[in-house]
Amino acid sequence: MIKAVIRPEKTEEVVEALAQEGFLALTRVDVVGRGKQGGLSVGEVVYDELPKSLLLLVVQEEEVERVCNTIIESARTGRFGDGKIFVSPVEEVYTIRTGRAEL
Amino acid sequence: MIKAVIRPEKTEEVVEALAQEGFLALTRVDVVGRGKQGGLSVGEVVYDELPKSLLLLVVQEEEVERVCNTIIESARTGRFGDGKIFVSPVEEVYTIRTGRAEL
Amino acid sequence: MIKAVIRPEKTEEVVEALAQEGFLALTRVDVVGRGKQGGLSVGEVVYDELPKSLLLLVVQEEEVERVCNTIIESARTGRFGDGKIFVSPVEEVYTIRTGRAEL
Repeated sequence: MIKAVIRPEKTEEVVEALAQEGFLALTRVDVVGRGKQGGLSVGEVVYDELPKSLLLLVVQEEEVERVCNTIIESARTGRFGDGKIFVSPVEEVYTIRTGRAEL
Repeated sequence: MIKAVIRPEKTEEVVEALAQEGFLALTRVDVVGRGKQGGLSVGEVVYDELPKSLLLLVVQEEEVERVCNTIIESARTGRFGDGKIFVSPVEEVYTIRTGRAEL
Repeated sequence: MIKAVIRPEKTEEVVEALAQEGFLALTRVDVVGRGKQGGLSVGEVVYDELPKSLLLLVVQEEEVERVCNTIIESARTGRFGDGKIFVSPVEEVYTIRTGRAEL
């Protein structure tokens, strides 16, 4: 399972880039986040938390690197707050429509 | 940890079915998702993303199969968009009220 | 990866306590949850689901215990509904801004 916390304004670009690589299935959640820099400072105002988009995808082991690279390339602006990608193990996947295990 | 992405209109039925099997504790998040079919087409309009309900439960290893079957049976309509279940490992569980580890 | 489901009114206190321990980076999601007690009963009315705050953090292995203790101490009221902490493995972490793997 790949969890990517990205800028919300980059969501469409990332989803489109993933679709072009053949990864259509994903789940998206609106979240708020802050990185190690602890929010954005504009003058005296500190924005502690910023809206982020959390994308969840489950892909085959051998596709993880390609998916991560696709997300990095399409989500990156080069500034703080671009987000993170976390890869974690999945033991079983079921498709509810068919009832079948897929891994 | 069991993560189930289901149709939002099936949430009550699934939560009820899980409760009858003794699984009361769960967390629910409103998400949007699309499956491999890339959204729903109605005439010329393509609905790329559809609202989904993400259920999170943590159960004992030996209960995973029963929980997944319960979700599949109560969440299934047989049409595309019924959703997926992902099972992933959990290393530690703490109950905040007691401060105790449970796994 | 540490996932903590806490009372929403405790969020600020927990985030502050984590920041003081040096853990600034986190993601927050509004969720609804119910614990083993199956919601809160007030007279005849049963509140089946209650708003919760889900915090996601990824920390080094050796910091997990300190983070969990910090969350437990700052999120606890001692009453049902204080929430749970789940610790699950993470295989890879990427910073999108730099494109670099961090684990």
